[in-house]
Order: sequence, then C-alpha cells, then structure tokens
Amino acid sequence: MKIKIRVPFFETSVKNYIYGDAVLNYAKAADAASKEYDVDVLFVTPYTEIRRVRENTERLIVLAPHMDAIKPGRGIADVLPEALKAAGAQGVVLNHSEKSVTLNILRKTIDRANELDLLTFVCADTIAEAQALARLHPDILNPEPTELIGSGTVSDMGYVREVIRAIKSIDPSIMVEQAAGITTAQQVYDFIMAGSEAAGAASGILTSVNPQVLLNDMVRSVKRAREDLTMQKRSSPSLL
Amino acid sequence: MKIKIRVPFFETSVKNYIYGDAVLNYAKAADAASKEYDVDVLFVTPYTEIRRVRENTERLIVLAPHMDAIKPGRGIADVLPEALKAAGAQGVVLNHSEKSVTLNILRKTIDRANELDLLTFVCADTIAEAQALARLHPDILNPEPTELIGSGTVSDMGYVREVIRAIKSIDPSIMVEQAAGITTAQQVYDFIMAGSEAAGAASGILTSVNPQVLLNDMVRSVKRAREDLTMQKRSSPSLL
Amino acid sequence: MKIKIRVPFFETSVKNYIYGDAVLNYAKAADAASKEYDVDVLFVTPYTEIRRVRENTERLIVLAPHMDAIKPGRGIADVLPEALKAAGAQGVVLNHSEKSVTLNILRKTIDRANELDLLTFVCADTIAEAQALARLHPDILNPEPTELIGSGTVSDMGYVREVIRAIKSIDPSIMVEQAAGITTAQQVYDFIMAGSEAAGAASGILTSVNPQVLLNDMVRSVKRAREDLTMQKRSSPSLL
Amino acid sequence: MKIKIRVPFFETSVKNYIYGDAVLNYAKAADAASKEYDVDVLFVTPYTEIRRVRENTERLIVLAPHMDAIKPGRGIADVLPEALKAAGAQGVVLNHSEKSVTLNILRKTIDRANELDLLTFVCADTIAEAQALARLHPDILNPEPTELIGSGTVSDMGYVREVIRAIKSIDPSIMVEQAAGITTAQQVYDFIMAGSEAAGAASGILTSVNPQVLLNDMVRSVKRAREDLTMQKRSSPSLL
Repeated sequence: MKIKIRVPFFETSVKNYIYGDAVLNYAKAADAASKEYDVDVLFVTPYTEIRRVRENTERLIVLAPHMDAIKPGRGIADVLPEALKAAGAQGVVLNHSEKSVTLNILRKTIDRANELDLLTFVCADTIAEAQALARLHPDILNPEPTELIGSGTVSDMGYVREVIRAIKSIDPSIMVEQAAGITTAQQVYDFIMAGSEAAGAASGILTSVNPQVLLNDMVRSVKRAREDLTMQKRSSPSLL
Repeated sequence: MKIKIRVPFFETSVKNYIYGDAVLNYAKAADAASKEYDVDVLFVTPYTEIRRVRENTERLIVLAPHMDAIKPGRGIADVLPEALKAAGAQGVVLNHSEKSVTLNILRKTIDRANELDLLTFVCADTIAEAQALARLHPDILNPEPTELIGSGTVSDMGYVREVIRAIKSIDPSIMVEQAAGITTAQQVYDFIMAGSEAAGAASGILTSVNPQVLLNDMVRSVKRAREDLTMQKRSSPSLL
Repeated sequence: MKIKIRVPFFETSVKNYIYGDAVLNYAKAADAASKEYDVDVLFVTPYTEIRRVRENTERLIVLAPHMDAIKPGRGIADVLPEALKAAGAQGVVLNHSEKSVTLNILRKTIDRANELDLLTFVCADTIAEAQALARLHPDILNPEPTELIGSGTVSDMGYVREVIRAIKSIDPSIMVEQAAGITTAQQVYDFIMAGSEAAGAASGILTSVNPQVLLNDMVRSVKRAREDLTMQKRSSPSLL
Repeated sequence: MKIKIRVPFFETSVKNYIYGDAVLNYAKAADAASKEYDVDVLFVTPYTEIRRVRENTERLIVLAPHMDAIKPGRGIADVLPEALKAAGAQGVVLNHSEKSVTLNILRKTIDRANELDLLTFVCADTIAEAQALARLHPDILNPEPTELIGSGTVSDMGYVREVIRAIKSIDPSIMVEQAAGITTAQQVYDFIMAGSEAAGAASGILTSVNPQVLLNDMVRSVKRAREDLTMQKRSSPSLL
C-alpha cells in the first residue's frame, strides 16, 4: 500500500546543489521540522543518498528524482523501480522540467510505480499540460506554469485557484502542489491558503543565505496555514 | 590520486538483474574472491547501492554505471560526479552500449572524472571506435566488437590481439579489458593469456545457474593466468 | 487559414518504405483516387518530397512527418515550421510512435503549427493518452491503442466507439482517425461506419502486393461508408 | 562514385536562418560565385530544398544537414539516406554541434553514406575529438575548437596548423576545413594560406548586412589564396 500523505504538506529537493553528507544534514533538518510542526515533508534526494536518508530520518517521505519504466534485467545505467523501492524510496518524481519524458513513457512509468506502491509526483509546465497529465491520474501534480513564476503577489492567487480547479475537475483525488519560484515562507502560507494541498521549494532554499532556517520557516508556514484554514472552516461552515 | 589497479584484473556488473540486498550479497562474494585470489575486482553497481557496497566490502574497486558531465547546481535527475565520489565510487563506466553518449559529452565527462580522480572505464563497439576513443585517453578501454561475441574459440584470439595492439599503438598506458560474451572461467583465462589486462562479465554470470560459484571461478582464472604469464616470462625472457 | 478537411477522409503515409520517384508515383495514385471518389486524402511524405508532391498533385492535403518547435535561426538539422510551409506542407504529424516527443514540446509545436495555419495530426498510444492529448486541442487525433491492433473483427468496434466518445467528451471539434493495423478496404469501411471521421494506412498498403490498387480500394471504401452513413441518417433521422 | 572535390574549396550552410525561395536565391548566388571564381562550393541546405537547389544550380555540391543510419522501411520522421540521394544530395553533414550523435551511430552513418557514394562532412569540437573522428575516415573533417573561435588574429594560425597536422598524421586523405567563427573574407584567405583545404561560414554570412556580397567575397578569397599558394610553391620548390 502506498504511504498516506496528510495535507497540506511540504516538499523539498536538493537537486544537485549539495551532495554527500550535506544531503544527510539537510534531510535531518527537514525531518526535525516535520516532527516539530507535525507536517508531512516529501524529500527528493539523489539516487546515491536514498538509502542513507531513509535510514537516518523518521518522518520524511523519501522520493527518487526519476525512474525508468523498466523491469529487472539489462540496462546498465537505467534506474530500476525495484532498486529504488529496495533502497527505501516511497515515491518518485516524474517529468520534472529538467528530466521530461514522452507521454507514452510517463504513462508506463506511472504504471510501474503503482505496481510497486510508489507515490507518483508528476510535474507539468502549463495549465493545459496539467489537465492533460491529470488524465494519467498521478498521486500528486505539480504544475509550474511560467505565468506563475516570479511576482509572488496576491494577484497570482487567481491563477493558483484556476489551476487547482482545472485539475480537480478531471480527477478530484489528485493532490495539487505549487512550487513555482517559491523563495519565502509567506509564499508557502499564501499558496496553501489559496487552496494548494502542498507547497515546495528547492532552488529557493538551497541558494538562500541560511537554507536550514528558511526550510524550517517554510514548514512552519504549512502548519500555520493548516490552522488558519481549520479556523476559517469552523467560522463559516456554509462556505464548504 | 586515482586508485591504482593491479593487472590483470576482473570486472563485473549487476546491471539491473538484481537489486537491494542481492546486490550486497553479490558484492560480498566478489570481495571474498578478490581477497582469496589476491586479484583486483572492479564492481559496477547501481547508484542506489554504491555507498552500501563500498562500506561493506574491503577490496572491491567500486564503479558507478554512468555519470553526467555536470557541476554542482541544477539538474534534478542528472548524476553529479561529486555525489558519486562522496558515496564512495572510485570510478565510472562511460559509453556503455546500453548508455551511449556523444563524443563531445564523453570527452567532457572524462575531464570531470579526472578532476575528481575517478577511474574512467570506457566502452567501444568496434576496433575503429576503440581506436577513436583511445584518443580521449581513458584509464580502461573495453572494446566489445560484435566480431568477438559468440564463438569463444581460440580463433577469436587473433582479434583480441589485434584490438589490443590497435589501442596500445595510440596510447600504451590504456588498460584493455575484454568482456564480450564471456560465460566461462576458461574464457577469462584465455583472454588474459592472449594479452588482455582484464576480463569481465555481467549477464554471463547473473543469468547462470549459480552466479557466486561462477564469479569465484572467473576470479580464480585471473589468478591462474597471472601465474602462467609470469612463468612464461621467466622461461623465455627473450620474448619480452 | 488552415485548409478545411471534409469528413470522412483518408490518410496515408509512405514512411521510409519508398523514396524518390516512387513517392511521387504513389502520391499521384492517391491524388487520382481522391478525385475519382471525391474524398479528401491526407498524404504524409518525407521532407525531401513535400514540394514535389504538392506541385504535382491537385487535391492531396500534404503533411510533413514531424517538425521542431523552433523559430528561424540556428539549428542545422532541426525542421523549421516555416520551411515546411514554404515547401507546400498544409499540416504536420506530431508524436507518431516512431517519433514521440515530450508533452511540453508537443504543446509548443502545436502552438507553432497554429501560428502558421498548419493542420495538426497528433498520434496517441492508448485511450488515456488520447484523452490527455485532447487537452492540447489538435485538429486530428489518431489513437493507435494496442488493444485495437490486430483482429479487425466486429468486436473491436466497441473500442472504437469508446475512444471516439472519450475524445469528443473533452473536445468535440477534434477529428478522430483510426489507423491501427488497417490492411483491408473493408476495415476502412467498418471504422468509418463505427463513427471514425477518418481511416488511415501506411505499412498495410506499402507492404501489400499491389499498393496502388489497395490504396484505391481504401479510398473508395471511404466514399461507400459516407454514402451509407448518409442513407442511414435519412432513414432514421430520430437517431441523430 | 563520390563526386570529386577540388581543393581549396568553400562551404556554406543556411541552417534555419532563411527558408523557401530565399534558400534558392542564396544557392544561386553561391553557384554564380562558384562559376565566377572556378572554386568548388559545398552547399548545405534543409531537406525540403535539396531537390530544388540541385535542379536549379550547376556547380554547387549539395549536402544534407544530417541523415539517420537506417535502411528503407519504417521510421516516419527518420531521414533515409536513399531519399537524400534520390533528391539530389551529393553528401551529408554529420555530428554538427547542433545535431551531435554517438560515436557508434556516427560510424554506422558513415558506412551508409559510403554505400551510397555520399560525401561525409564530419564536425568535431576539439583537437582531441578531431583525432578520434579521423579514425572513422570521413571525407572532410571540420574541427571547430572553441580555442579557435573569436579573435581571428594571426596567432590563431598556430592552432590551425596544429589541428591539420593532428588529423593528417592519422589519415592524410581527410580534407580539413576551418569554419569556426569566420565572418570576413580575409579570414577565409588566412585559413587557407595556413594550410586548410577549405573554409566555411553560415551564421557569419547570413547575419551580415549583405549576405550575397559577403558570400561572393569569401569565394573570391579562396581563389586568391589558391593562386598565392601556387605562386609560393613555384618560387620555393624546395619547401615542398
């Protein structure tokens, strides 16, 4: 059975900004924040660190950055789903803009992930793409429309709501994350208040002055948004 | 400084035939054989197992199956050389027929490997390609000419000598390995007696009835060939 | 303005089965059939023959087999949309199973085609993919589900209707073609009677004993299906 | 039999800077210059214009910008060597930095070109790559080392001579062209005087104010260099 994620959640990735022990230290900080604020944190780590991150953290949900739609056998540098699972991965990122695949391959890879109970975290570039990819029923969709990247102002929230509505109209069970250009904890809060089930950041954290502090602030923002949303619902139940 | 390899050596890879604990068990068997026969063994393992194999073996020389010519930074599923090194890899396979790259990329990746003191194990498909790739001065060249695959008879040895001569005429410091279609310990012995500095097998071992026994036999054959070559040299010094 | 296609239509491609003058001869046979039966025929031709086919036929609608989402400038072997248009192409095939692209690239290429009034003929591998691609609103969708390939029996027609319904529910203006494994004129007739707006064949014709005769038969089948459908509608208007 | 090229020659390409009739006009200007100065001109044109350029020029040697190592059959958007030949191409550019291929594919494509008597014009990025590719024995090698691009000063000529020597030491029958960053007719003259058998330009011409005038000047420079080289040889025969 796939691991259950509690929404709203936070997601972060180290890409290739750091490596070796620095990944483990960052993972431990993410794990500590996850426990401190009782917020689920998805952690995308390079293949080489999957096992170590999983073995040395308690609450992180560990994702691989990609996998190939293969079965055990040949393929010397292809990434075997079973190998990720055995190393401790609980999910996988697919179709990231830095590792895009054809629709056909994406569908087959989602099938393999489902066979192995790996969460599928699928990225899209525009609202049209997000709607197309919703037809493949991933667990999580992360639309990063270029329209959204940058300003971080309140006016963006209209777009956020539109993309969520567009995806949910096709498959309401898909969790929608926003991670486009997030650099502050306030943005994390705003995106979740606008209806996102998750917010995420990688470059925004790892190129900041103090990554672990910013990471902690962002996870706390998820908790704050969760509480404020609960409050809102209680005070205006008719809006549900 | 790159790790020094003592010739003749043996090389094996698990490709994606096995995963998880089975990789570790196979690595331990290879490590035991390496110690038993005092023969260097290069072990190519999926990214996810590099650290575990390295930490749980003593003599194996651990190689990654591929890496990208990138520097720390973006690139979510690209394989960062520094990450391999930090995980314990001592070298890298490049241009395997199941993961071929352009000449331009290959040259840049060899440069990155040299910067980090990672051994470069480069594959070629024909003698012409082997000669071309010798110009990039990898540490080890593994020509797998289709001409060589299959018969395993003595007549092949003419080809083996030809390909070794072709490579050495361009750069005598390149170590030449033969791994084309090897399925028996006798072939390992024959290739090394014919002048190869190494022999290797992956599919031939992992699709056999008892992989660990065959692996052990092959490593022993390297030792036997080493001793017989030493004997030959002693008895006919003028042939040097 | 894009050229208007009258449904039902027929589509054929030469892939790389023939080249040079044989392509022109095949195109002339297709053009003659198009005129003889008053049926629109889409003709997919290698880049090198686009201009010659277009200049030497009267009714064919000429399509390129692929194009890149680029604008005039660099890119020595990339296929420039403007170059196809200038050579006479009226449309383009995208995402053929022998030339698949990422969803992101596909979307950008459809945008470029629309800018230049080139028809977009998009291929999909399964019903799920067809539905995903319908979100990109191509002019024509050609689902080739493996489920459909092969038997050619009446029972397949349930699938045909399902895939048409699945696509039309997302965008009713998309024309749906069936081309999966068609080898006989009767199949062309059956697919159109089942609701397809078009049928197509390439390998089925070009590997047959007498391609030009089979091609002519298939185009005639489109006419026959059109007439029978018209008759049906007249005799049972309430079913509309 | 492959067409014979007389050295020194000139080479130009339109890449995707222009398309349609503009390609034909540029080709006619190149053809006129070829005749005016009695200099062979290689003309690389997009696939769609190969036939028209060949049919409407007299002396140009027409090259395709790429081809795939396939034989007649499937592959809807692959570029079939036979199709290029039938359209009038007399050669093909391979491994251009904007369309690089693996060494294995390059070798197979050169084989296909040789089968069809198509000239092979192969590009390399550095001196090391040029030497590697010389082992595949193309007809023409076009090294575009980054070291060479830019200054256009006399000091570059040391590099030019070095790369020519490096290639000729492996296969003296390979013709060496320089095309790295050429923007003036004087550079064409200098490169040929330094020992190159050809000079070429694409971007340098097509982004200039008056491409046809610059093209004509460059072809005239080839003639001037040819005459000056002949003169040199006559006056100092002992230097041969």
